[in-house]
Amino acid sequence: MENPAQLNTILDEFAKISGPKVMVHGGGNKASELSRKLGIKPRMVNGRRITDGDTLEVITMVYAGLVNKNLVAKLQSKKVNAIGLSGADGNTIPAVKRPVKEIDYGFAGDLPDELHSGHSLKVLLENDMTPVFCALTHDGKGQLLNTNADTIASYLAKVLCRTYQVTLVYCLDKPGVLLNPHDHSTIVRELNPSYYQELISKGIIVEGMIPKLDNAFSGLRLGVQQIYLCDWNDITGGSGTKISLS
Amino acid sequence: MENPAQLNTILDEFAKISGPKVMVHGGGNKASELSRKLGIKPRMVNGRRITDGDTLEVITMVYAGLVNKNLVAKLQSKKVNAIGLSGADGNTIPAVKRPVKEIDYGFAGDLPDELHSGHSLKVLLENDMTPVFCALTHDGKGQLLNTNADTIASYLAKVLCRTYQVTLVYCLDKPGVLLNPHDHSTIVRELNPSYYQELISKGIIVEGMIPKLDNAFSGLRLGVQQIYLCDWNDITGGSGTKISLS
Repeated sequence: MENPAQLNTILDEFAKISGPKVMVHGGGNKASELSRKLGIKPRMVNGRRITDGDTLEVITMVYAGLVNKNLVAKLQSKKVNAIGLSGADGNTIPAVKRPVKEIDYGFAGDLPDELHSGHSLKVLLENDMTPVFCALTHDGKGQLLNTNADTIASYLAKVLCRTYQVTLVYCLDKPGVLLNPHDHSTIVRELNPSYYQELISKGIIVEGMIPKLDNAFSGLRLGVQQIYLCDWNDITGGSGTKISLS
Repeated sequence: MENPAQLNTILDEFAKISGPKVMVHGGGNKASELSRKLGIKPRMVNGRRITDGDTLEVITMVYAGLVNKNLVAKLQSKKVNAIGLSGADGNTIPAVKRPVKEIDYGFAGDLPDELHSGHSLKVLLENDMTPVFCALTHDGKGQLLNTNADTIASYLAKVLCRTYQVTLVYCLDKPGVLLNPHDHSTIVRELNPSYYQELISKGIIVEGMIPKLDNAFSGLRLGVQQIYLCDWNDITGGSGTKISLS
């Protein structure tokens, strides 16, 4: 999202996808930038943001305001009837504040295992609207919560796969899972749970990819029909890593 | 919106309104506050904000992000299925960038006389969602625009009155139009165009009330069934000033 030309290309590709579709986005870099300008120091633990009250205000402004509305306006200019949402809007993603254990993540929202009906979401999709979700949810008691965008994408795919054939695509800044991060030709075309464990044990799959892939496998187990990890330049997923259970 | 207890009361009252409903809000004070923190000096001419690029970013963050999403989360906690929107979302309010004449208002959006179909808006209302609009529109070419919240409220009432019986209520920090601003007992119970002109010529109706009332009369002429100006404490309008054409 920091590169306007690249963003424009991605949105053009997204606009070409036929049928009902949903976009989920983050905005962490922009949020960190605004935090710094306001003198709020971003705090991360294990790659996860600690969301205190000030930080929640910043991400609500950046994710749901600046990033979301600009994406929506740009998609509208490409004739996609985009509608920007947080998980509070239409009560689309009810969440629970993460319990405090060793670390207090603050206003971080975890998604319950029990899936929501997705009623409002389906109303939008069935009326030719394209939901664009930012990485915010709510607790149903008036509190907004910060929730990882990959987790939201996986959650929405699980909700929607009970009604639709769903393809879930995680867009990366590389072509997919790579055996050698410096060599794109070493892409893993298909990843199943045993190969995944093998690549973790060899230290080839690390850090941020692990929650993403855990989310992906969890989606497949709950019936999401197809899941890919791929490059921004190929958001239809065809050239990336296919996640499979067998 | 700066007073949490008052806001809670208003949202409780709003939640009690039966039938389809829409909320429109501003957020100018919060936007000015963030502007100051970021070293962007708010510039106003004739009570209207000059919206340069930096200011547009600020109001997009504050109106569509901070204010809108907190209102939505709070309404959800009161069992109102709120869905927060800018005029770009669902292409609900297409606007035109204000032409530059003596003053360049920057990214300010004017609403066309020709009314939009309101298709997406009706889909939401007919599916028990409660749209909560912030004061942002778009030009359909990817550009967000700052548009006065009163103007948006009047515009939406005009769109909706072709399908529904619409009551439009402008909420103020006083009980309605007052002959003496320091004496609430001097409230004008009903205001028609000739009395309105008389009160303007006497200097009783001034400044910010004039565009609000111009919007109101324009709404009535285009078929909005009932229009009130009233206090925040009585958002059903009954105790305020009724606007009428005869």
